[in-house]
Amino acid sequence: MPDSRPPIADVICVGTELLLGDVVNSNAAWLGEQLADNGIQCFYHTAVGDNPTRIGHVIDHALNRAEQPADILIFTGGLGPTDDDLTVATIVEHFGQTPTMVSDPASEEAIKAFFIARNMTHSRNNLKQALRPSDGIALANHVGTAPGLVWDISPHVGRPAIVLCFPGVPKELFALWPQGLSELRQWLGHHPFTTPHLARTFLHFFGIGESKIAELLADVMADANPTVAPYVGKSSVRIRLAAMANSEGEANELLAPVKTTILERLGDYYIGEGDTIHIEERVGQTLVAHQASVAVAESCTGGLVSSRLTDVPGSSTYTTLNVTTYSNDAKTEQLGVNPDLIGSHGAVSTHVAAAMAEGIRAKANSTYGLALTGIAGPDGGTADKPVGLVYIGVATPNGTTVTKQLVNSRLSRQDIKFWFSEYALHALYKALQA
Amino acid sequence: MPDSRPPIADVICVGTELLLGDVVNSNAAWLGEQLADNGIQCFYHTAVGDNPTRIGHVIDHALNRAEQPADILIFTGGLGPTDDDLTVATIVEHFGQTPTMVSDPASEEAIKAFFIARNMTHSRNNLKQALRPSDGIALANHVGTAPGLVWDISPHVGRPAIVLCFPGVPKELFALWPQGLSELRQWLGHHPFTTPHLARTFLHFFGIGESKIAELLADVMADANPTVAPYVGKSSVRIRLAAMANSEGEANELLAPVKTTILERLGDYYIGEGDTIHIEERVGQTLVAHQASVAVAESCTGGLVSSRLTDVPGSSTYTTLNVTTYSNDAKTEQLGVNPDLIGSHGAVSTHVAAAMAEGIRAKANSTYGLALTGIAGPDGGTADKPVGLVYIGVATPNGTTVTKQLVNSRLSRQDIKFWFSEYALHALYKALQA
Repeated sequence: MPDSRPPIADVICVGTELLLGDVVNSNAAWLGEQLADNGIQCFYHTAVGDNPTRIGHVIDHALNRAEQPADILIFTGGLGPTDDDLTVATIVEHFGQTPTMVSDPASEEAIKAFFIARNMTHSRNNLKQALRPSDGIALANHVGTAPGLVWDISPHVGRPAIVLCFPGVPKELFALWPQGLSELRQWLGHHPFTTPHLARTFLHFFGIGESKIAELLADVMADANPTVAPYVGKSSVRIRLAAMANSEGEANELLAPVKTTILERLGDYYIGEGDTIHIEERVGQTLVAHQASVAVAESCTGGLVSSRLTDVPGSSTYTTLNVTTYSNDAKTEQLGVNPDLIGSHGAVSTHVAAAMAEGIRAKANSTYGLALTGIAGPDGGTADKPVGLVYIGVATPNGTTVTKQLVNSRLSRQDIKFWFSEYALHALYKALQA
Repeated sequence: MPDSRPPIADVICVGTELLLGDVVNSNAAWLGEQLADNGIQCFYHTAVGDNPTRIGHVIDHALNRAEQPADILIFTGGLGPTDDDLTVATIVEHFGQTPTMVSDPASEEAIKAFFIARNMTHSRNNLKQALRPSDGIALANHVGTAPGLVWDISPHVGRPAIVLCFPGVPKELFALWPQGLSELRQWLGHHPFTTPHLARTFLHFFGIGESKIAELLADVMADANPTVAPYVGKSSVRIRLAAMANSEGEANELLAPVKTTILERLGDYYIGEGDTIHIEERVGQTLVAHQASVAVAESCTGGLVSSRLTDVPGSSTYTTLNVTTYSNDAKTEQLGVNPDLIGSHGAVSTHVAAAMAEGIRAKANSTYGLALTGIAGPDGGTADKPVGLVYIGVATPNGTTVTKQLVNSRLSRQDIKFWFSEYALHALYKALQA
């Protein structure tokens, strides 16, 4: 088929609450990423209110515009039980009287079961959600009550075209997407569209900036397939690797050597692979694997490092006592920091960080001691010791090391605390690798 | 003017990164709220890539659609210095050769000064950002380098119409908006649009649900002006009060009695007025006012309460020592909790919460002692003491009180920790009011 081309999708998000700004349209971004990952082009995202006329205008414009009209319409929202929820009815009416609406038996069962499981009774409106065009496919919703819909509208449009409807609640959209995508890919395969397969992964790095990464990876980033793109996260950089090919196997084969190259060049900064990486989880897994424990002594971070460590389920097995010693007296009384050290070097110093780390390790009788002393601002900085300065001590069975970090002083106090906690958790993680 | 009506605005967000899902389009929601607050109708939000043809299509559709065409086009994004940033040039070209582009002297100065202040030199591309149509108004940007633009396009459209362009970086949009809005309101005043004034405020409540609020405020919520709408936040409920009138004074007069009514009915749950309320700030302000101090002893929250207290600048004046005693031994050794109490009542109990609160108050020699002991899950729950159960102790100069709270056990560990910290900070705040 010489004129095959990538399909074009429009993303249409329905809900007056989007227009009023009561809800941020995160679904559009999420769908945008999914479409790109599947080699589907997308030129417009539209948000429109719960209004049949205006929803109709958006459909018209998407399907009938002169340049690059959409082959695929992806809707989110307006699938609920209330009178405001009219996405499916509006779409069906838009294409005339031809399609018959039927109640999908599986959807009806699922809705009834949803309410029975919650000791509630369904209303007539809830059963409205089971309606679909007789030639449409319902997507089962195991999270909420609104089934999704896949509907081939080619007979109504006079060329290959398809509608997909998903609930507006993000977790329901996420849950129904794989099923919808699978139906979509099948449909695309029957029409003259190119439908490449994608292999994708994310590698995470800490302690290296985006520009340095771009410099070290200039050659691989210049390639069109696989694509290599760094994204700056809150503290780490995530490199997205994606390869397109005619099969998943081929795509993976394209990806593998590039991944190896990247890890060879940036291995020192590598923290892991996956959609997201939480350093506190990595630390926890490593402590469990080593049957080791840690205790934390904090100052200006005020318990943030301790709280992040205990965000991880099961953390009570490797951390039993953490303290926040904000004042100098508390550092001396609780951690045994020699007041002379504080007097001669100041509370924010290499010496005090080391003494705090050793002090908490001894007090808690833990394998590791982690300590932070710094200036989170906005006040308390000096020319010598500015806002954003932190010393991080890690006491281990083999001795104590202290690292000094300087964070952008123009950040908010909360952000500076976050960065201090990041540096501390990464310092501990490094020590655990040694 | 008998045919005056509310103006209609389209929000158009430019950036391929929006379509690809690299960035969530929070600007659209924020602008939607601003427009609604100013009595401006908005029926469509569109996101479009950095592509002149497609940006042109969006402009055409917004201005020329048969029903409810836009009077106001609000753009965000595409004002940067790179070749991809072409919003202003595209808009100007769209309306033919008539407008002359000039370099705005103030914008040019500001861009040069921005780079000098950072010891950097500007590029020729940066100066491109100072260009505006000769009859347009530049909006000064004190946060970044891209000036905004207000441009009356009535001569080009043949009816009253105006374009506003803002940078895509949210904090720059927020900074430029008041200036743009002021120009817009002036312009609206010269044309046959109704431009009501709005008075708006947010009241915050904790410990009462949305449905209970709806029940207690059914009568005032039924009114069309002022509108009264509760929004569920992460833990508190925010009630939005908004009144429209022909002057700001009149709008405020409409608002005042409704606010009084609400506070009379919900006063027990009231925590404050303002766009956002941070309970840790309220606690901090009250402690400072009373010249009092607090020390915190935590268990499963792992330092989160302490960290939140120390998010507030200046918190070192009222909190000097906090501890996380995760294990029973630590509770006994650090806080002097009698092991028999733990043995007979369990670590998660009224008795242990009280003993921890009194223990930390004595140890830190503080005015108040705050303690939490609970089960954040996902493991560790029993039929008797399920995941989501927490006891909160507040030790004061006049005695100790303990409250018990039960949080939805299906929440994540992190969310349960957050709720526990909320209850604890609110319990402390209540005690500080007594």
